[in-house]
Amino acid sequence: MRRMPVNDAFFLMLESRRTPMHVGGLNLFTLPKDVDDASFLGKIGDILRYDGELRRPFGEKLKTGPLGIAGNVYWEDDEELDMEYHVRHSALPKPGRYRELFSLVSRLHGSLLDRSRPLWEMHLIEGLQNRQFATYFKAHHCAIDGVGAMHLMMSMYSTNARNKVKLSPLSYEAYQAYKQQIEAGKQANIRPRNEEVRAISDVLREQLGGTVNVARAVQDMASVWMGRNTGVSVPFHKVPRSALSTQLTGARRFVAQSWDFARVRAVGKAFGGTLNDAVMAMCAGALRKQLQAQRALPKHSLKAMAPVSLRAAGDIDSANAIGMVCVDLATNLRDPARRMRTIKESMDAAKAQLEQLTPREIQIYTGISQAPMLFTQLLGLGSRFPAFSTVISNVPGPREKRYWNGARLDGMYPVSIPFDGAAVNFTLVSNFDKLDFGIIACRRSVPHVQNLIEHMEEALVELEDAAGLRTPSGRRRKAPKRKASRPKQAKTAK
Amino acid sequence: MRRMPVNDAFFLMLESRRTPMHVGGLNLFTLPKDVDDASFLGKIGDILRYDGELRRPFGEKLKTGPLGIAGNVYWEDDEELDMEYHVRHSALPKPGRYRELFSLVSRLHGSLLDRSRPLWEMHLIEGLQNRQFATYFKAHHCAIDGVGAMHLMMSMYSTNARNKVKLSPLSYEAYQAYKQQIEAGKQANIRPRNEEVRAISDVLREQLGGTVNVARAVQDMASVWMGRNTGVSVPFHKVPRSALSTQLTGARRFVAQSWDFARVRAVGKAFGGTLNDAVMAMCAGALRKQLQAQRALPKHSLKAMAPVSLRAAGDIDSANAIGMVCVDLATNLRDPARRMRTIKESMDAAKAQLEQLTPREIQIYTGISQAPMLFTQLLGLGSRFPAFSTVISNVPGPREKRYWNGARLDGMYPVSIPFDGAAVNFTLVSNFDKLDFGIIACRRSVPHVQNLIEHMEEALVELEDAAGLRTPSGRRRKAPKRKASRPKQAKTAK
Repeated sequence: MRRMPVNDAFFLMLESRRTPMHVGGLNLFTLPKDVDDASFLGKIGDILRYDGELRRPFGEKLKTGPLGIAGNVYWEDDEELDMEYHVRHSALPKPGRYRELFSLVSRLHGSLLDRSRPLWEMHLIEGLQNRQFATYFKAHHCAIDGVGAMHLMMSMYSTNARNKVKLSPLSYEAYQAYKQQIEAGKQANIRPRNEEVRAISDVLREQLGGTVNVARAVQDMASVWMGRNTGVSVPFHKVPRSALSTQLTGARRFVAQSWDFARVRAVGKAFGGTLNDAVMAMCAGALRKQLQAQRALPKHSLKAMAPVSLRAAGDIDSANAIGMVCVDLATNLRDPARRMRTIKESMDAAKAQLEQLTPREIQIYTGISQAPMLFTQLLGLGSRFPAFSTVISNVPGPREKRYWNGARLDGMYPVSIPFDGAAVNFTLVSNFDKLDFGIIACRRSVPHVQNLIEHMEEALVELEDAAGLRTPSGRRRKAPKRKASRPKQAKTAK
Repeated sequence: MRRMPVNDAFFLMLESRRTPMHVGGLNLFTLPKDVDDASFLGKIGDILRYDGELRRPFGEKLKTGPLGIAGNVYWEDDEELDMEYHVRHSALPKPGRYRELFSLVSRLHGSLLDRSRPLWEMHLIEGLQNRQFATYFKAHHCAIDGVGAMHLMMSMYSTNARNKVKLSPLSYEAYQAYKQQIEAGKQANIRPRNEEVRAISDVLREQLGGTVNVARAVQDMASVWMGRNTGVSVPFHKVPRSALSTQLTGARRFVAQSWDFARVRAVGKAFGGTLNDAVMAMCAGALRKQLQAQRALPKHSLKAMAPVSLRAAGDIDSANAIGMVCVDLATNLRDPARRMRTIKESMDAAKAQLEQLTPREIQIYTGISQAPMLFTQLLGLGSRFPAFSTVISNVPGPREKRYWNGARLDGMYPVSIPFDGAAVNFTLVSNFDKLDFGIIACRRSVPHVQNLIEHMEEALVELEDAAGLRTPSGRRRKAPKRKASRPKQAKTAK
């Protein structure tokens, strides 16, 4: 039995039937040539059902005292681990398009995990067209964060199509091997100790004396709230109430799409910025179009929370190692180029601030600046006092083509968490030569989520035009290769 | 907007993520000859997605005041009714046996309904072998009870294989037509008024003065608790703690099986009893075997709650019109014949008591005798003070073969509610010449639920032997016809 860090346990407290707090990942594969699909998937299922020693906490369940999750929370071994429960075989109805896949993932992501068992489910999904199959992995955010989940899936992949992997990605053995492989395990853990985050106000009081940098960051934040502009966006400040700042319902709608890495990076570069700046601008442009179509574009600009990973390189142990920056999406600006530049400036200011801090200081600062959000979420006021309008999160993924027992990995689409006040979440993984976007939204608050995919493409084209990256005939100078094996038609999204 | 009766709202209060309070039904069909499965199911899906005027409360959602569901609860029209959300197309992975079907239904039944929408889901399931398909309908018990759900499905069936039905079973029109068809709508509604059930202690006080019969029933119940045996089993009295009296977890396991109506009735008759007595004895024998195999058979006999429908013939309006009797399952007796006779005596005594009461009195009596259960459930003490050990519920169904747009109805398997202290529920529908059993249990508390099916068959054979209904060679005198189109192999159950 071991105690769950308090910042992990937050996610149990924040959870309700309207707002499940699990993260997910949809991975898409093409079957190897010359295999029988049923027997291949049967073997994959057997690997996943391995019930020997599992990596923590995937063989552990919650244990609480008389106060329930409001008190101390522990992980303890589940003596009756039932892998048939956790590993599930599903199928798509005909015709087995991405539309049917997204529909299934939307449903699976909308239901709560069973708190009397280890907090994860793995779904093996058959019935896709073109010899594809999929896995959807779902785990509670108190057990793992998005980056951790991505590492977990990565541990089963190989760069060699002929490699056979017999280990379950959830096994302790696979975890150790993966850790060694990425030369990890020697780095210091940069997560704050429990005492540091238990009472954020205590931390604030304690830290402000000794830690000059955190004090400076808090002062910067206070300056913005006081009206002196430092270029840094802060949570809650001038965040408009919009169609995205709703109280969520429990149902979700998920869509996924891939874009060429090179294409998005070229846009970032053309504006003197980064790939991530261009990603923000794509999402900003899409949200502007979406809200305009609903006649619901707010006068003030939307703000996005962009989580920043605080993992030391090679740290794959921490369940939650996330800091946050708040970015101005400039959705009030009509001109795509001006919007892009404003976003870049906002990102640069936030990064400049973070660069003055050590990772531990960043997390304490994030804790301080996000603390009010915890209270608004717990009190159900998230929709009335939104801390930000949406979350846009970029997770670094594999840089080479990957295979799982010969099955080609075609896409890694994250499925994250919308919450009260931020009804849609964009999370992307950079996967070899693609950016794999997973967009998850409250089904009721955000109608026509599938249109966001089209709007993102339109926003990207506008930025390419503004940057002179397209010829006058309207074609991009360097046409990117699109693979048939990825979701590419916004029309198929559902 | 209309107020939800308090006895319906109870089911919202009793619900938790460990104990969802919805009822379900799995219906099994064979596709008509010469139809293309995809286009046939497509049409069925279109019918089900009808979003015109729906029968109440299937187009309505919950509305509560500041006290939430602890205060007054109302139904109000859902202005954003989203039929794509409610009607879901699912598929089974290969090889599409009943095992895969039961596995899917187990999962679907274990997740909570979305309280921000009308409280039902309809799943159309493809991918079964032998040209079969299935529907799984799920609705909150505050909206409909098991008998009501059965009527709802019945409204779309015809005795004529060539009949085409264009109406959704959820439509107001289908509901009216069905009501007329069974010559209903003229009967008095026998449900107690809200005031009568709002505070059961008040009812008790009020009624004891004027209603002699209820007073007598309460006296009988008190006699049993005081140790004077009147032959009537009462809730809580000498109910042993057993492997079934557990705190539930959220996951479920569902299995289904059909038996010949004639075969079970013959056993009842041979012992001078009813079909229902024989059903109780089958379940009792199976539970005895199951607990023996777990070395967990309690010394005292298990008790079953048997819901009694209080609907006036033709009343298909009431959401919840249920009384209850408590039956001694005599699981402490080794001899099947003695067990059967004890069960029959217990049933007879309970029925004799109920016969002295009017339906309204029965419901008040049930309210009184079950009231402590409500409190033990709400306080989470159901597993420590079990009111009974299991629920065995017999729902009258169609007496003739039925078709849905030409698709033959092969089975109607109810999926009911296990709860704290009664971790397994047996519900059956008498359907033409079969008894269709649906058995639903907490996945963790009741291991190997599929074995119950085998044990029920063994218990039935033992009763047939004891009654001399089988020849010395071990074959039944009158071999029943079993159809290949129904779940019949316990081995396929999962």
